[in-house]
Amino acid sequence: MLSKNQIKLITSLQQKKQRNTHRLFFAEGIKVIQELLESKFELEHLFTTQSDFQEVSTDKKVVIDAGDLKKISALATPNTCLAVFKIPVEKKIVESGLIIALDAVRDPGNLGTIMRLCDWFGIDQIICSKETVDIYNPKVVQATMGSIARVNVTYVDLETFISQTQVPVFGTFMEGENIYKTNLPLEGIIIMGNEANGISPEIEKLITNRLSIPRFGTLQKTESLNVATATAIVLSEFRRAII
Amino acid sequence: MLSKNQIKLITSLQQKKQRNTHRLFFAEGIKVIQELLESKFELEHLFTTQSDFQEVSTDKKVVIDAGDLKKISALATPNTCLAVFKIPVEKKIVESGLIIALDAVRDPGNLGTIMRLCDWFGIDQIICSKETVDIYNPKVVQATMGSIARVNVTYVDLETFISQTQVPVFGTFMEGENIYKTNLPLEGIIIMGNEANGISPEIEKLITNRLSIPRFGTLQKTESLNVATATAIVLSEFRRAII
Repeated sequence: MLSKNQIKLITSLQQKKQRNTHRLFFAEGIKVIQELLESKFELEHLFTTQSDFQEVSTDKKVVIDAGDLKKISALATPNTCLAVFKIPVEKKIVESGLIIALDAVRDPGNLGTIMRLCDWFGIDQIICSKETVDIYNPKVVQATMGSIARVNVTYVDLETFISQTQVPVFGTFMEGENIYKTNLPLEGIIIMGNEANGISPEIEKLITNRLSIPRFGTLQKTESLNVATATAIVLSEFRRAII
Repeated sequence: MLSKNQIKLITSLQQKKQRNTHRLFFAEGIKVIQELLESKFELEHLFTTQSDFQEVSTDKKVVIDAGDLKKISALATPNTCLAVFKIPVEKKIVESGLIIALDAVRDPGNLGTIMRLCDWFGIDQIICSKETVDIYNPKVVQATMGSIARVNVTYVDLETFISQTQVPVFGTFMEGENIYKTNLPLEGIIIMGNEANGISPEIEKLITNRLSIPRFGTLQKTESLNVATATAIVLSEFRRAII
């Protein structure tokens, strides 16, 4: 049984402002919750319609019915469980190896998918501009499919950060160097830009290595790739020589 | 000014059954509509809040206000225009070059993104199982960003189709041959599977070439890639040697 206050609190966590006030976020579904439980994230409360999650202590686990789950879920078709976790203190940026930096990526699905890609390709660090969607947005948490437990995400003033780095800074443009014919290093920052506008002019001037993903054929008219699929191609290219 | 019947008809086109009954679908936004106008698609009606689309004859163009647009739009934040087009007769499958075949891809965003990728990488033909989401779903049309005008999509009984083909059939699996170390041909069918279940057993047994996209490092726990990002990596790999 859920109290009115619990319902109010959890639904309020769909808003970034409320998440920041309470320092809480929520995740839905067994897989994502399981991965968060096994990681650094601290559980506040787990709500489930099943008798699962035996490892969670009874003072933190609340068995509820499907009707109550629907009241707190952000999904059109709720799963069987929802867990509220504490938002951890942002970890320091580990500036080594490859880093993905997001310049105002706004779509929650794209950020979640990019985290999943980073997890797959062994990128431990994502740096986001302040304009990038919040990683604790329920749609982002969902789209990460659990990768949120393993990839470190930090929000910074991206222009200041990039202007101070010592490593090469990569970005993709229509007229960059063919990515398939470029020797790509093991260290550097790869900038991925906004869905509609690409990389912003302030960041573009800080890019040291301009790459392009060539289109096939000359008759093709399509102008751009989705930012998550472009990230997939770029990361695959950076890693393919060594895996 | 829109009539009640027009509003009723257009909103009904959000459902596949109604689209098939009327043989109509709609698209929103200048870019997508422009690309459809320049292609094989036949315009039924264009509704716009601006004085744009000078090339559209006045008997097909209706200037409406933002309030009316909101009534017919499928978007939370409507654009400035919505156009209704006739659903063309399905073209015959052109079985040459590379073909993408989708085995029950359900998410509209994924299908749209895959069409955009095919357009980028010069794949003219997508074959979909009957369980795959309908390309005239408004969310698919939107996610294609206009590529729907250039890539031929055909719905078939996928098992029957694949069992009769003469070309190699590719699929990605955890234990396939490392895609980065495989010579990939210019011709073949690449199967991409369902978001939750991957490639179905009936289709899997027809696959002649099992590939894998290796993960980086052994400690990574992530189990799968999103189907659109996996398609991006696979198509990039098939094309990289020749572009």
